Amino acid sequence: MFIAMNRFKVRSDAEQDFEQVWLGREVRLHEVPGFVSFELLRGPRREDHRLYASHTVWQSEDHFVAWTKSEAFRAAHGGAGGAKPLYLGHPEFEGFEVIQAIAGKT
Amino acid sequence: MFIAMNRFKVRSDAEQDFEQVWLGREVRLHEVPGFVSFELLRGPRREDHRLYASHTVWQSEDHFVAWTKSEAFRAAHGGAGGAKPLYLGHPEFEGFEVIQAIAGKT
Repeated sequence: MFIAMNRFKVRSDAEQDFEQVWLGREVRLHEVPGFVSFELLRGPRREDHRLYASHTVWQSEDHFVAWTKSEAFRAAHGGAGGAKPLYLGHPEFEGFEVIQAIAGKT
Repeated sequence: MFIAMNRFKVRSDAEQDFEQVWLGREVRLHEVPGFVSFELLRGPRREDHRLYASHTVWQSEDHFVAWTKSEAFRAAHGGAGGAKPLYLGHPEFEGFEVIQAIAGKT
């Protein structure tokens, strides 16, 4: 499994707007081959921002790369430039490979 | 749900040792109240290190905090000081709250 993570330093005055953009979008990820799950995460608040992260889990890195080259990806990321700046700098992308997984009883 | 993440900058000559420490440890997390799942993640390689991250998912932040105060936590983290330095600096802890989750078909 492969986890594509993006980290966002969201401006302190833009947290609600940032969350609304994500919660309000039309989601088609579940139709994409190899997609396993997605989570939007609210992290710690710091001096001038709050850290958010998106996690998208794929069956493999190849599935993720294929999605980034697809029409569905372009559709999902179009129109993002029109809003006021919600975060500091650029989102920071990190790709991870799952090398150990432990499941709980619940 | 709450995700406790630790990020490690693992020295380039210590990747195998770092993974062995994790894969070889005795795991009792599944016995801990509120534990949902754990993953060890291998991230991108950079100039002088490779990024690793551990994700531990809990039913709530309260469950996580209770675990950090438990005897099981002390037992899990004892003896970590004896090894040669495997990573640069200290692990970086970040706690996240899940605010949106989307599941795939698979």
